[in-house]
Amino acid sequence: MEKEREPVRRPGGRAARVRAAVHQAVADLVGDRGYGNFTVGDVAARAGVADSSVYRRWGNLEALLSDVAATRLAATSPAPDTGSLEGDLRTYAATAARDVAGPDGTAILRLAISLSNSGQPGLEARDAFLAERTRQLQVMLDRARDRGEHPPDVLQVLDLILSPMYLRILFGTGPLTPAYVDELVDRLLILRTTTGG
Amino acid sequence: MEKEREPVRRPGGRAARVRAAVHQAVADLVGDRGYGNFTVGDVAARAGVADSSVYRRWGNLEALLSDVAATRLAATSPAPDTGSLEGDLRTYAATAARDVAGPDGTAILRLAISLSNSGQPGLEARDAFLAERTRQLQVMLDRARDRGEHPPDVLQVLDLILSPMYLRILFGTGPLTPAYVDELVDRLLILRTTTGG
Repeated sequence: MEKEREPVRRPGGRAARVRAAVHQAVADLVGDRGYGNFTVGDVAARAGVADSSVYRRWGNLEALLSDVAATRLAATSPAPDTGSLEGDLRTYAATAARDVAGPDGTAILRLAISLSNSGQPGLEARDAFLAERTRQLQVMLDRARDRGEHPPDVLQVLDLILSPMYLRILFGTGPLTPAYVDELVDRLLILRTTTGG
Repeated sequence: MEKEREPVRRPGGRAARVRAAVHQAVADLVGDRGYGNFTVGDVAARAGVADSSVYRRWGNLEALLSDVAATRLAATSPAPDTGSLEGDLRTYAATAARDVAGPDGTAILRLAISLSNSGQPGLEARDAFLAERTRQLQVMLDRARDRGEHPPDVLQVLDLILSPMYLRILFGTGPLTPAYVDELVDRLLILRTTTGG
Protein backbone atom coordinates (compact mmCIF):
# COMPACT_ATOMS: atom_id res chain seq x y z
CA MET A 1 0.00 0.00 0.00
CA GLU A 2 1.41 3.32 -1.09
CA LYS A 3 0.85 6.00 1.57
CA GLU A 4 0.97 9.73 0.87
CA ARG A 5 4.44 10.71 -0.26
CA GLU A 6 6.42 12.37 2.47
CA PRO A 7 9.67 14.23 2.07
CA VAL A 8 12.65 12.36 3.52
CA ARG A 9 13.49 13.97 6.88
CA ARG A 10 17.17 14.13 7.69
CA PRO A 11 18.18 15.54 11.04
CA GLY A 12 19.07 19.12 10.27
CA GLY A 13 17.36 18.77 6.89
CA ARG A 14 14.65 20.95 5.44
CA ALA A 15 11.80 19.38 7.45
CA ALA A 16 13.66 19.97 10.73
CA ARG A 17 14.43 23.55 9.73
CA VAL A 18 10.76 24.20 8.89
CA ARG A 19 9.68 22.69 12.19
CA ALA A 20 12.13 24.82 14.16
CA ALA A 21 11.15 27.98 12.27
CA VAL A 22 7.43 27.33 12.76
CA HIS A 23 7.84 26.55 16.47
CA GLN A 24 9.86 29.74 16.91
CA ALA A 25 7.23 31.74 15.01
CA VAL A 26 4.50 30.40 17.31
CA ALA A 27 6.55 31.27 20.40
CA ASP A 28 7.12 34.80 19.06
CA LEU A 29 3.44 35.31 18.20
CA VAL A 30 2.32 33.97 21.59
CA GLY A 31 4.71 36.44 23.21
CA ASP A 32 3.62 39.38 21.06
CA ARG A 33 -0.11 38.80 20.81
CA GLY A 34 -1.12 35.97 23.15
CA TYR A 35 -2.96 32.78 22.26
CA GLY A 36 -6.07 33.20 20.17
CA ASN A 37 -4.81 36.32 18.40
CA PHE A 38 -3.05 34.89 15.36
CA THR A 39 -3.75 32.53 12.46
CA VAL A 40 -1.90 29.81 10.56
CA GLY A 41 -1.22 32.50 7.92
CA ASP A 42 0.48 34.70 10.53
CA VAL A 43 2.63 31.80 11.69
CA ALA A 44 3.64 30.86 8.15
CA ALA A 45 4.51 34.46 7.26
CA ARG A 46 6.61 34.88 10.40
CA ALA A 47 8.38 31.56 9.79
CA GLY A 48 9.00 32.34 6.10
CA VAL A 49 7.19 29.22 4.86
CA ALA A 50 4.05 28.62 2.80
CA ASP A 51 0.71 28.24 4.62
CA SER A 52 0.39 24.84 2.91
CA SER A 53 3.58 23.62 4.63
CA VAL A 54 1.98 24.28 8.01
CA TYR A 55 -1.35 22.68 7.11
CA ARG A 56 0.34 19.65 5.55
CA ARG A 57 2.39 18.99 8.62
CA TRP A 58 0.07 19.95 11.49
CA GLY A 59 -3.41 19.93 9.96
CA ASN A 60 -4.71 22.93 11.91
CA LEU A 61 -3.72 25.68 14.30
CA GLU A 62 -4.88 23.79 17.41
CA ALA A 63 -2.66 20.81 16.68
CA LEU A 64 0.30 23.11 15.99
CA LEU A 65 -0.17 25.03 19.27
CA SER A 66 -0.50 21.80 21.18
CA ASP A 67 2.67 20.38 19.56
CA VAL A 68 4.61 23.52 20.47
CA ALA A 69 3.36 23.47 24.06
CA ALA A 70 4.10 19.76 24.55
CA THR A 71 7.57 20.05 23.01
CA ARG A 72 8.39 22.98 25.21
CA LEU A 73 7.21 21.35 28.43
CA ALA A 74 8.95 18.06 27.61
CA ALA A 75 12.21 19.94 27.00
CA THR A 76 12.06 22.13 30.10
CA SER A 77 10.33 19.73 32.50
CA PRO A 78 10.97 16.02 31.93
CA ALA A 79 9.61 13.72 34.65
CA PRO A 80 12.26 13.46 37.41
CA ASP A 81 14.12 10.28 38.41
CA THR A 82 15.60 10.88 41.88
CA GLY A 83 15.55 7.24 43.03
CA SER A 84 12.59 7.49 45.42
CA LEU A 85 8.86 8.11 44.99
CA GLU A 86 8.83 10.93 47.51
CA GLY A 87 11.85 12.61 45.90
CA ASP A 88 10.27 12.27 42.47
CA LEU A 89 6.93 13.67 43.63
CA ARG A 90 8.54 16.64 45.38
CA THR A 91 10.66 17.47 42.34
CA TYR A 92 7.72 16.92 40.00
CA ALA A 93 5.47 19.20 42.05
CA ALA A 94 8.10 21.93 42.42
CA THR A 95 8.77 21.89 38.67
CA ALA A 96 5.07 21.93 37.83
CA ALA A 97 4.60 24.90 40.19
CA ARG A 98 7.48 26.78 38.56
CA ASP A 99 6.16 26.01 35.06
CA VAL A 100 2.57 26.96 35.69
CA ALA A 101 3.38 30.12 37.63
CA GLY A 102 5.52 31.42 34.76
CA PRO A 103 3.98 33.36 31.84
CA ASP A 104 4.46 30.41 29.52
CA GLY A 105 2.71 27.98 31.87
CA THR A 106 -0.24 30.25 32.40
CA ALA A 107 -0.60 30.68 28.64
CA ILE A 108 -0.43 26.90 28.11
CA LEU A 109 -3.09 26.38 30.77
CA ARG A 110 -5.36 28.83 29.02
CA LEU A 111 -4.59 27.14 25.73
CA ALA A 112 -5.60 23.72 27.10
CA ILE A 113 -8.87 25.21 28.34
CA SER A 114 -9.63 26.97 25.10
CA LEU A 115 -8.75 23.84 23.11
CA SER A 116 -11.25 21.95 25.24
CA ASN A 117 -13.93 24.26 23.88
CA SER A 118 -13.08 24.69 20.23
CA GLY A 119 -14.63 21.63 18.67
CA GLN A 120 -13.15 18.37 17.49
CA PRO A 121 -9.69 19.52 16.28
CA GLY A 122 -9.23 21.30 19.59
CA LEU A 123 -10.29 18.23 21.57
CA GLU A 124 -7.87 16.04 19.64
CA ALA A 125 -5.03 18.49 20.19
CA ARG A 126 -5.84 18.66 23.89
CA ASP A 127 -5.96 14.87 24.17
CA ALA A 128 -2.61 14.53 22.39
CA PHE A 129 -1.13 17.08 24.75
CA LEU A 130 -2.57 15.51 27.91
CA ALA A 131 -1.62 12.01 26.72
CA GLU A 132 2.02 13.04 26.36
CA ARG A 133 2.09 14.67 29.81
CA THR A 134 0.31 11.68 31.35
CA ARG A 135 2.70 9.23 29.70
CA GLN A 136 5.74 10.92 31.26
CA LEU A 137 4.11 10.92 34.70
CA GLN A 138 3.12 7.26 34.34
CA VAL A 139 6.75 6.31 33.57
CA MET A 140 7.79 7.99 36.81
CA LEU A 141 5.10 6.19 38.85
CA ASP A 142 5.90 2.85 37.17
CA ARG A 143 9.55 3.18 38.20
CA ALA A 144 8.40 3.56 41.83
CA ARG A 145 6.26 0.44 41.55
CA ASP A 146 9.21 -1.46 40.05
CA ARG A 147 11.29 -0.46 43.09
CA GLY A 148 8.61 -1.96 45.36
CA GLU A 149 7.13 1.38 46.42
CA HIS A 150 3.39 2.09 46.37
CA PRO A 151 2.77 4.98 44.03
CA PRO A 152 -0.54 6.85 43.66
CA ASP A 153 -2.22 6.71 40.28
CA VAL A 154 -2.06 9.45 37.68
CA LEU A 155 -5.54 10.76 38.51
CA GLN A 156 -4.62 11.18 42.18
CA VAL A 157 -1.61 13.25 41.13
CA LEU A 158 -3.86 15.32 38.91
CA ASP A 159 -6.49 15.86 41.63
CA LEU A 160 -4.17 16.48 44.57
CA ILE A 161 -1.12 18.21 43.08
CA LEU A 162 -1.95 19.76 39.73
CA SER A 163 -5.59 20.81 40.11
CA PRO A 164 -5.10 22.96 43.24
CA MET A 165 -2.07 24.66 41.66
CA TYR A 166 -3.84 25.27 38.39
CA LEU A 167 -6.90 26.74 40.10
CA ARG A 168 -4.78 29.08 42.20
CA ILE A 169 -3.11 30.35 39.04
CA LEU A 170 -6.31 30.62 37.01
CA PHE A 171 -8.22 32.41 39.77
CA GLY A 172 -5.18 34.25 41.07
CA THR A 173 -6.11 33.20 44.60
CA GLY A 174 -2.69 32.60 46.07
CA PRO A 175 1.00 32.18 45.32
CA LEU A 176 2.50 28.71 44.91
CA THR A 177 4.97 28.94 47.78
CA PRO A 178 7.40 26.05 48.40
CA ALA A 179 5.56 25.35 51.69
CA TYR A 180 2.24 25.10 49.87
CA VAL A 181 3.65 22.83 47.17
CA ASP A 182 5.18 20.58 49.84
CA GLU A 183 1.83 20.41 51.62
CA LEU A 184 0.18 19.20 48.41
CA VAL A 185 2.75 16.40 48.18
CA ASP A 186 2.29 15.56 51.88
CA ARG A 187 -1.44 15.15 51.29
CA LEU A 188 -0.85 12.84 48.35
CA LEU A 189 1.58 10.70 50.35
CA ILE A 190 -0.84 10.45 53.29
CA LEU A 191 -3.82 9.53 51.12
CA ARG A 192 -1.84 7.01 49.12
CA THR A 193 -1.01 5.08 52.29
CA THR A 194 -4.41 5.62 53.95
CA THR A 195 -6.42 4.53 50.96
CA GLY A 196 -3.89 1.87 49.90
CA GLY A 197 -3.18 3.34 46.45
CA MET B 1 -21.32 62.95 56.70
CA GLU B 2 -23.43 63.06 53.58
CA LYS B 3 -22.72 60.14 51.27
CA GLU B 4 -23.64 60.03 47.57
CA ARG B 5 -27.38 60.36 47.13
CA GLU B 6 -29.02 57.02 46.42
CA PRO B 7 -32.56 56.47 45.26
CA VAL B 8 -34.79 54.99 47.93
CA ARG B 9 -35.20 51.29 47.18
CA ARG B 10 -38.56 49.83 48.07
CA PRO B 11 -39.08 46.15 47.54
CA GLY B 12 -40.90 45.94 44.25
CA GLY B 13 -40.01 49.55 43.51
CA ARG B 14 -38.31 50.91 40.44
CA ALA B 15 -34.80 50.00 41.60
CA ALA B 16 -35.84 46.39 42.19
CA ARG B 17 -37.55 46.26 38.80
CA VAL B 18 -34.45 47.64 37.06
CA ARG B 19 -32.26 45.13 38.87
CA ALA B 20 -34.51 42.22 37.90
CA ALA B 21 -34.70 43.37 34.26
CA VAL B 22 -30.94 43.86 34.02
CA HIS B 23 -30.22 40.47 35.63
CA GLN B 24 -32.62 38.80 33.22
CA ALA B 25 -31.05 40.61 30.26
CA VAL B 26 -27.61 39.35 31.30
CA ALA B 27 -28.92 35.79 31.64
CA ASP B 28 -30.51 36.02 28.18
CA LEU B 29 -27.37 37.44 26.57
CA VAL B 30 -25.17 34.82 28.25
CA GLY B 31 -27.50 32.16 26.87
CA ASP B 32 -27.60 33.65 23.37
CA ARG B 33 -24.04 34.79 22.89
CA GLY B 34 -21.91 33.54 25.78
CA TYR B 35 -19.77 35.58 28.14
CA GLY B 36 -17.45 38.08 26.52
CA ASN B 37 -19.70 38.69 23.54
CA PHE B 38 -21.86 41.57 24.73
CA THR B 39 -21.48 45.06 26.17
CA VAL B 40 -23.19 47.18 28.82
CA GLY B 41 -25.05 48.83 25.92
CA ASP B 42 -26.43 45.45 24.82
CA VAL B 43 -27.58 44.68 28.35
CA ALA B 44 -29.25 48.05 28.76
CA ALA B 45 -31.02 47.77 25.40
CA ARG B 46 -32.30 44.27 26.19
CA ALA B 47 -33.44 45.37 29.67
CA GLY B 48 -35.12 48.50 28.32
CA VAL B 49 -33.14 50.86 30.56
CA ALA B 50 -30.58 53.59 29.89
CA ASP B 51 -26.88 52.66 29.76
CA SER B 52 -26.33 55.21 32.52
CA SER B 53 -28.64 53.27 34.85
CA VAL B 54 -26.40 50.24 34.52
CA TYR B 55 -23.17 52.18 34.96
CA ARG B 56 -24.55 54.11 37.94
CA ARG B 57 -25.56 50.95 39.75
CA TRP B 58 -22.81 48.47 38.85
CA GLY B 59 -19.93 50.64 37.63
CA ASN B 60 -18.81 48.28 34.86
CA LEU B 61 -19.67 45.11 33.01
CA GLU B 62 -17.40 42.92 35.12
CA ALA B 63 -19.08 43.94 38.38
CA LEU B 64 -22.51 43.37 36.83
CA LEU B 65 -21.61 39.88 35.56
CA SER B 66 -20.16 38.97 38.91
CA ASP B 67 -23.28 40.21 40.74
CA VAL B 68 -25.52 38.15 38.48
CA ALA B 69 -23.39 35.02 38.93
CA ALA B 70 -23.21 35.39 42.72
CA THR B 71 -26.95 36.04 43.02
CA ARG B 72 -27.73 33.04 40.92
CA LEU B 73 -25.46 30.67 42.81
CA ALA B 74 -26.67 31.94 46.18
CA ALA B 75 -30.27 31.36 45.14
CA THR B 76 -29.78 27.91 43.69
CA SER B 77 -27.04 26.63 45.99
CA PRO B 78 -27.04 28.01 49.53
CA ALA B 79 -24.60 26.33 51.92
CA PRO B 80 -26.33 23.26 53.44
CA ASP B 81 -27.19 22.76 57.12
CA THR B 82 -27.78 19.04 57.66
CA GLY B 83 -26.70 18.88 61.30
CA SER B 84 -23.33 17.19 60.78
CA LEU B 85 -20.05 18.19 59.14
CA GLU B 86 -19.96 15.08 57.00
CA GLY B 87 -23.55 15.56 55.86
CA ASP B 88 -22.89 19.21 55.08
CA LEU B 89 -19.73 18.43 53.12
CA ARG B 90 -21.40 15.69 51.09
CA THR B 91 -24.36 17.90 50.23
CA TYR B 92 -22.10 20.86 49.51
CA ALA B 93 -19.89 18.78 47.19
CA ALA B 94 -22.83 17.18 45.39
CA THR B 95 -24.43 20.59 44.83
CA ALA B 96 -21.17 22.14 43.65
CA ALA B 97 -20.72 19.24 41.22
CA ARG B 98 -24.23 19.69 39.87
CA ASP B 99 -23.74 23.46 39.52
CA VAL B 100 -20.40 23.36 37.81
CA ALA B 101 -21.28 20.54 35.44
CA GLY B 102 -24.32 22.47 34.17
CA PRO B 103 -24.01 25.00 31.35
CA ASP B 104 -24.46 27.87 33.78
CA GLY B 105 -21.72 26.66 36.09
CA THR B 106 -19.24 26.16 33.30
CA ALA B 107 -19.97 29.66 32.04
CA ILE B 108 -19.49 31.10 35.53
CA LEU B 109 -16.18 29.28 35.88
CA ARG B 110 -15.00 30.76 32.61
CA LEU B 111 -16.23 34.15 33.75
CA ALA B 112 -14.23 33.95 36.99
CA ILE B 113 -11.12 33.07 35.00
CA SER B 114 -11.62 35.81 32.47
CA LEU B 115 -12.32 38.33 35.26
CA SER B 116 -9.01 37.32 36.83
CA ASN B 117 -7.30 38.54 33.67
CA SER B 118 -9.15 41.69 32.76
CA GLY B 119 -7.44 44.29 34.91
CA GLN B 120 -8.48 45.95 38.13
CA PRO B 121 -12.30 46.08 37.68
CA GLY B 122 -12.21 42.38 36.81
CA LEU B 123 -10.10 41.54 39.84
CA GLU B 124 -12.45 43.45 42.14
CA ALA B 125 -15.48 41.72 40.68
CA ARG B 126 -13.80 38.33 41.05
CA ASP B 127 -12.84 39.07 44.66
CA ALA B 128 -16.39 40.16 45.48
CA PHE B 129 -17.71 36.96 43.94
CA LEU B 130 -15.21 34.68 45.70
CA ALA B 131 -15.71 36.52 48.98
CA GLU B 132 -19.43 35.85 48.89
CA ARG B 133 -18.95 32.16 48.09
CA THR B 134 -16.26 31.86 50.77
CA ARG B 135 -18.44 33.57 53.36
CA GLN B 136 -21.24 31.04 52.88
CA LEU B 137 -18.82 28.14 53.16
CA GLN B 138 -17.24 29.64 56.28
CA VAL B 139 -20.66 29.87 57.97
CA MET B 140 -21.16 26.16 57.32
CA LEU B 141 -17.72 25.26 58.73
CA ASP B 142 -18.22 27.54 61.76
CA ARG B 143 -21.45 25.73 62.60
CA ALA B 144 -19.51 22.45 62.67
CA ARG B 145 -16.92 23.94 65.00
CA ASP B 146 -19.72 25.25 67.26
CA ARG B 147 -21.10 21.71 67.48
CA GLY B 148 -17.66 20.49 68.65
CA GLU B 149 -16.69 18.94 65.34
CA HIS B 150 -13.31 19.57 63.69
CA PRO B 151 -13.94 21.15 60.31
CA PRO B 152 -11.30 21.68 57.63
CA ASP B 153 -10.55 25.26 56.63
CA VAL B 154 -11.93 26.96 53.55
CA LEU B 155 -8.70 26.55 51.59
CA GLN B 156 -8.72 22.80 52.18
CA VAL B 157 -12.26 22.64 50.80
CA LEU B 158 -11.12 24.66 47.80
CA ASP B 159 -8.05 22.48 47.16
CA LEU B 160 -9.60 19.08 47.79
CA ILE B 161 -13.21 19.41 46.64
CA LEU B 162 -13.62 22.34 44.28
CA SER B 163 -10.28 22.44 42.41
CA PRO B 164 -10.38 18.84 41.15
CA MET B 165 -13.99 19.26 40.01
CA TYR B 166 -13.30 22.56 38.30
CA LEU B 167 -10.27 21.20 36.47
CA ARG B 168 -12.19 18.17 35.25
CA ILE B 169 -14.83 20.47 33.84
CA LEU B 170 -12.41 22.97 32.34
CA PHE B 171 -10.24 20.30 30.70
CA GLY B 172 -13.14 17.97 30.01
CA THR B 173 -11.14 15.09 31.50
CA GLY B 174 -13.86 13.16 33.23
CA PRO B 175 -17.47 13.25 34.43
CA LEU B 176 -18.29 14.21 38.02
CA THR B 177 -19.92 10.95 39.04
CA PRO B 178 -21.45 10.61 42.53
CA ALA B 179 -18.72 8.07 43.37
CA TYR B 180 -16.02 10.53 42.37
CA VAL B 181 -17.59 13.37 44.34
CA ASP B 182 -17.88 11.13 47.42
CA GLU B 183 -14.22 10.19 47.06
CA LEU B 184 -13.26 13.85 47.12
CA VAL B 185 -15.18 14.27 50.39
CA ASP B 186 -13.60 11.09 51.81
CA ARG B 187 -10.16 12.53 51.10
CA LEU B 188 -11.00 15.78 52.85
CA LEU B 189 -12.36 13.95 55.91
CA ILE B 190 -9.25 11.73 56.11
CA LEU B 191 -6.80 14.60 55.73
CA ARG B 192 -8.66 16.77 58.21
CA THR B 193 -8.20 14.13 60.92
CA THR B 194 -4.70 13.10 59.83
CA THR B 195 -3.32 16.61 59.68
CA GLY B 196 -5.35 17.78 62.67
CA GLY B 197 -7.29 20.50 60.77
